[in-house]
Amino acid sequence: MSDPNRIPRNTMNDHSNEWAEKRRQFLTEKTGATLNNTGHYSVDPSLLPGNVENFIGVVQLPVGIAGPIQVNGEYAQGLFYVPLATTEGTLVASYSRGMRVINECGGVKTTVVEQFMQRAPAFIFEDAREARDFGHWITAHFDEIKTVAETTTRIGQLEHIQQWSVSKTKYLRFNYTTGDAAGQNMVGKATLAACEWICANYPHKCEYLLSGNMDTDKKHSHLNMLHSRGKRVIAEVVLKKSVLKKIMKVDTKTLARATVLANTGAMMAGAAYNGPHSANGIASMFIATGQDEANVVESHAGILAHELLDNGDIYMSVTLPSLIVATYGGGTGLPTQKECLELLGCYGQGKANKLAEIVAATVLAGDISLGCAVIGGHWVSSHDKLGRNRD
Amino acid sequence: MSDPNRIPRNTMNDHSNEWAEKRRQFLTEKTGATLNNTGHYSVDPSLLPGNVENFIGVVQLPVGIAGPIQVNGEYAQGLFYVPLATTEGTLVASYSRGMRVINECGGVKTTVVEQFMQRAPAFIFEDAREARDFGHWITAHFDEIKTVAETTTRIGQLEHIQQWSVSKTKYLRFNYTTGDAAGQNMVGKATLAACEWICANYPHKCEYLLSGNMDTDKKHSHLNMLHSRGKRVIAEVVLKKSVLKKIMKVDTKTLARATVLANTGAMMAGAAYNGPHSANGIASMFIATGQDEANVVESHAGILAHELLDNGDIYMSVTLPSLIVATYGGGTGLPTQKECLELLGCYGQGKANKLAEIVAATVLAGDISLGCAVIGGHWVSSHDKLGRNRD
Amino acid sequence: MSDPNRIPRNTMNDHSNEWAEKRRQFLTEKTGATLNNTGHYSVDPSLLPGNVENFIGVVQLPVGIAGPIQVNGEYAQGLFYVPLATTEGTLVASYSRGMRVINECGGVKTTVVEQFMQRAPAFIFEDAREARDFGHWITAHFDEIKTVAETTTRIGQLEHIQQWSVSKTKYLRFNYTTGDAAGQNMVGKATLAACEWICANYPHKCEYLLSGNMDTDKKHSHLNMLHSRGKRVIAEVVLKKSVLKKIMKVDTKTLARATVLANTGAMMAGAAYNGPHSANGIASMFIATGQDEANVVESHAGILAHELLDNGDIYMSVTLPSLIVATYGGGTGLPTQKECLELLGCYGQGKANKLAEIVAATVLAGDISLGCAVIGGHWVSSHDKLGRNRD
Amino acid sequence: MSDPNRIPRNTMNDHSNEWAEKRRQFLTEKTGATLNNTGHYSVDPSLLPGNVENFIGVVQLPVGIAGPIQVNGEYAQGLFYVPLATTEGTLVASYSRGMRVINECGGVKTTVVEQFMQRAPAFIFEDAREARDFGHWITAHFDEIKTVAETTTRIGQLEHIQQWSVSKTKYLRFNYTTGDAAGQNMVGKATLAACEWICANYPHKCEYLLSGNMDTDKKHSHLNMLHSRGKRVIAEVVLKKSVLKKIMKVDTKTLARATVLANTGAMMAGAAYNGPHSANGIASMFIATGQDEANVVESHAGILAHELLDNGDIYMSVTLPSLIVATYGGGTGLPTQKECLELLGCYGQGKANKLAEIVAATVLAGDISLGCAVIGGHWVSSHDKLGRNRD
Repeated sequence: MSDPNRIPRNTMNDHSNEWAEKRRQFLTEKTGATLNNTGHYSVDPSLLPGNVENFIGVVQLPVGIAGPIQVNGEYAQGLFYVPLATTEGTLVASYSRGMRVINECGGVKTTVVEQFMQRAPAFIFEDAREARDFGHWITAHFDEIKTVAETTTRIGQLEHIQQWSVSKTKYLRFNYTTGDAAGQNMVGKATLAACEWICANYPHKCEYLLSGNMDTDKKHSHLNMLHSRGKRVIAEVVLKKSVLKKIMKVDTKTLARATVLANTGAMMAGAAYNGPHSANGIASMFIATGQDEANVVESHAGILAHELLDNGDIYMSVTLPSLIVATYGGGTGLPTQKECLELLGCYGQGKANKLAEIVAATVLAGDISLGCAVIGGHWVSSHDKLGRNRD
Repeated sequence: MSDPNRIPRNTMNDHSNEWAEKRRQFLTEKTGATLNNTGHYSVDPSLLPGNVENFIGVVQLPVGIAGPIQVNGEYAQGLFYVPLATTEGTLVASYSRGMRVINECGGVKTTVVEQFMQRAPAFIFEDAREARDFGHWITAHFDEIKTVAETTTRIGQLEHIQQWSVSKTKYLRFNYTTGDAAGQNMVGKATLAACEWICANYPHKCEYLLSGNMDTDKKHSHLNMLHSRGKRVIAEVVLKKSVLKKIMKVDTKTLARATVLANTGAMMAGAAYNGPHSANGIASMFIATGQDEANVVESHAGILAHELLDNGDIYMSVTLPSLIVATYGGGTGLPTQKECLELLGCYGQGKANKLAEIVAATVLAGDISLGCAVIGGHWVSSHDKLGRNRD
Repeated sequence: MSDPNRIPRNTMNDHSNEWAEKRRQFLTEKTGATLNNTGHYSVDPSLLPGNVENFIGVVQLPVGIAGPIQVNGEYAQGLFYVPLATTEGTLVASYSRGMRVINECGGVKTTVVEQFMQRAPAFIFEDAREARDFGHWITAHFDEIKTVAETTTRIGQLEHIQQWSVSKTKYLRFNYTTGDAAGQNMVGKATLAACEWICANYPHKCEYLLSGNMDTDKKHSHLNMLHSRGKRVIAEVVLKKSVLKKIMKVDTKTLARATVLANTGAMMAGAAYNGPHSANGIASMFIATGQDEANVVESHAGILAHELLDNGDIYMSVTLPSLIVATYGGGTGLPTQKECLELLGCYGQGKANKLAEIVAATVLAGDISLGCAVIGGHWVSSHDKLGRNRD
Repeated sequence: MSDPNRIPRNTMNDHSNEWAEKRRQFLTEKTGATLNNTGHYSVDPSLLPGNVENFIGVVQLPVGIAGPIQVNGEYAQGLFYVPLATTEGTLVASYSRGMRVINECGGVKTTVVEQFMQRAPAFIFEDAREARDFGHWITAHFDEIKTVAETTTRIGQLEHIQQWSVSKTKYLRFNYTTGDAAGQNMVGKATLAACEWICANYPHKCEYLLSGNMDTDKKHSHLNMLHSRGKRVIAEVVLKKSVLKKIMKVDTKTLARATVLANTGAMMAGAAYNGPHSANGIASMFIATGQDEANVVESHAGILAHELLDNGDIYMSVTLPSLIVATYGGGTGLPTQKECLELLGCYGQGKANKLAEIVAATVLAGDISLGCAVIGGHWVSSHDKLGRNRD
């Protein structure tokens, strides 16, 4: 193990400044890259265990502030200044513009509809009949399974188990509520305990894989569109014809027509989202607030809906069926991330629904802004002004 | 405009330390949140215009190093130390473990198959027949359109235009190569010029929307799975039975069987990716190297394939059809991001294919590692050890 | 109403030979087409009301017999001669060949996992919050809703109601069992009664559309793949290496490899079925046995799975999640259709599961046969011999 | 081979009345089912070779006439009486009602946009790089491949070859025009010749499977939605507010609103078609006119679009991207089927586009009718009157 290419460590999990420095020096020797800026950070290394291994420093991602945006939610109420970590010029300006429109129309109404986190084991049998009968047994023993699963967690609660039979496999999907944590690890641990109990108690042979990929973790799926992974959140606004004209130079009717075209294009494309760019706002907020950045893929799915009203105003809503956010655990406690959460009044327990509402509101603001920019022809010109078109 | 809630600025685009500080103070007054850590950065504000507006500071995202991984690509050749910006404990350790397996099997072979960046306007007509005939005109005038589009860029080249007729709309999808930039703005500008020329020269009435959502930008789509947005990259390895047994305690046959189960689960779920977690590696590398973090949603799509060989070894590959990476432009020039690119020898022009190969290799390593962890039962236990299960 | 182009009738629903003849004469006058063969039928017109309007005669669709096939189901047990109504040469021969292989391997095991028929109204509200709260009310009043729905039918039973919130709409999906009828009309009637009761009793404003397209009736959908519309049936067989070699000239290993390739192709294509041609067997049996021929689109979805066993044999299964079959009602009582059902011992009440099992078994036989033909290179040559390549 | 269960034959392909009778007698002995009606037919058995094997007689499927419908196509012009073979009561009446609405609004405009038939072989290599390079070779040798493919057919023309790289496989998709035949066998034969030539001439090792399932034959796929399998046809109408009110008792605005709801429901469901029931009209016309009945699954996919106009009228269109129809070959020459084609003036060469236009027009009529029925609340009541609700 005296491999000269091996990253130096006493353990991977020593996050001290000393070992971070040693690793940077090693990398500089190996690759010639200097890592001075990466080594410039204020985070106390003692906070890092549980967030990263082989720590060498930090990436500094610029944060801009969009807003404020008026949110009329059940959890988020008032004006919010939204931190967006991004390197895409125009993004903060564009979201801000959408927020200004929304504010002049009275703000955005937000609603959390439901919330689940899943782990989905696959049980394999000799034939389809055994798999089916196993499913009946699971249904009959739900209460015991729930009890066992919940012994592993103070917070997680097993709500229901979905079942799918394919070939001789029974795919189960355990649905939990997980409080203010995203909960992927929590539900993994609980489901492992449940599976072990099941195999110990099922009167026949029982073999399983802890994930058969119907969770579906860290990827977009149509299943997640239907059966929320994370929170199902809806943000709504009625945009006044006059406000849209004044700020955006766009008529509501034109916006409606363009939205239909884009919607049809998304259907043809088989897109996970039919609006302009949910992923931009979500990714930027996720990074700023210490969310698991890979969950952008589940979270960006959704439906942008609209209705042109008789008075010429236009109702718009965004439905995000699988928005995965936490205000506790994961990266939320790191210094800059915690500061950004506190900026929103969203750090700690009891805040996850509030954060979900602000994210959905932000997505709606961004889609209104970009939708109007595409119509108004200032999409390209604003990127020319604010963006980084170097070629 | 003396709105007391408005974020202070001379312009949104003043990134000076002075104005960043003023904005932080304003936010602290408004929200009570302190932003000291956010204000701690080494990036020179003069680099920031074009990357963010209303700048207040940075998020510090921990970077861990995975690897090294032996890549046998056409552009990336040798051992690479992979910077992963993440807050998910276990992630770096898990990718490293997969890399170790790969190295002991001789490394990963990588291939860039094709690369495109798109902008997809929608042209609206009186009826379907006009839309169809317009399509014929576009085909007949491709050379002129190409010339016009390319006047706006030194680098972008218009390769071909796809067409779809739906109702009375003709959706076009302009496919460009964009050198070492991701190119979304580049192709937007070029396509705008092309559309303006088209409407000026098409002998009949012509109305368009610069994006009809068939790009499909900042969202996963089946279209992107088929017709690459970004680079189509494939990473392959033959895992030796003995190595997998030694390092992972997993038999190749068991791995094959579990992979089939997970594949079927993904099909049932309608998932964008059928392997364990492409998004983790991609998101972490994207943030570390200054990619547009929202592009994770397009980039995470793909297919994990395997074949159990007669000698007991197992061939595994990951195909990423829409991996969007840049080594130039966007956030790649920011200090920490540039350092991470330089760590990989991937900063600047002529390096994007190399970076794409390393990303694909990393994804494969991570999927081998997590796939084996799920089988071996150490998935949950390793998260218990390295992760942040606080409840 | 003395429109000279109007089809003659006293009522559309007079199916007498006399009026059929009058209509044919009228059409011959109008179009010049003779309709003598169409007028040649043995069906007693008095059976036709409820099956067709403006009756002019029949299409004679050739029926060939495939099999017999040994089915080892829970409802279908023994050898079955399968009537296939088709005009595609080779089809009957190909299915027969697959059945012969299956028989020599001991027959096909079939399992009905679950069964539902749906009607899915959409309820529209002022905002997402009202829609969500309405959903809670529905859950709380399930028992009463069930009682009301079931007043309209002797057979249908409301099992559960699924809910989805999108924008300010609440989509409900009523899931019924419908005995041996397909049940689309039965559940429509029951759900209408339920909706009327809901609107009469819900304490707030309530507006609905009887179908919001989440049924999803007469179209394939991923939703149906997940949540069975009709019966979820699985057919399984272990093919012996020696039998496959003898009859098909194909090695099981080659079959496994080709199946993987085709499976991946189907994933890339975003296909509703990953095997060769479920729709052929289903369409042919549906027409022969008086099923609603449009339901082929829901029914053809599914997953073909395989596993190469240690002894060189190969396990294959087909999972059809939404197979819609009836042995009662609809077209099942028409003379030729009834005869074809009786050929299978499947006419009348208590037979629908049996029919579902035979259909699934037939699909599996056909996929084995075509799969091997593609590999063996006799796909094209057999169509040359048995098909209709006239050009 | 003196298996007592074997269906009697000299050959499977003896369609004589004598052998049909022998087979029926055998089946009656085996199963007890009488097959007198099945044995009642006017088709001359000498026409049947190439359409069926093990012939025992016919299914008599009732045909009703819908219409007439005014079609203003490029190929179909005038009033058409549409034969629908169905056993679903209400269907003919409902399509007729939609046609009446359309006629009073001036008829339906139809447009054939493009047409292809595909065969999609998969070529397997040692690694992804070889697969990619093979693709370049294919592109470079297109002219020779085209020549070879077309030697096998008088009619088929190879238009272009699509390529997809996944893992170490190169999926090709050969796109042909096939005149007035559906062409599945024609393109299979041509592609087989092409593949044989490719393997004989490619300078490296070359192994292939004639179909890798990206055709995608006999199943719905998103690929077919994008890249037409069969004809891409669009039918359009502007419905007058007054006419809709008079005949349907429905306001155009209500229809627009309901269509949006149903569209969103279809998106949520991941449906192949977003309108009410394309499959009904297509299946019924396919059976009546001798089409391959399994092709309903590809053909029913599509998009229903609408636009509420300023004057209160409503534009509606249906886009069917993969409508597979033939007026020559297959079952089109059988007596009753030929009569139904002649009824439409669509039998023989040069008529396939005309038939495609009439099918699309019919689908639009049916969707307008059912859409209005669902709104107007007479959906269930009309099925009560005309349908077969026996329970």
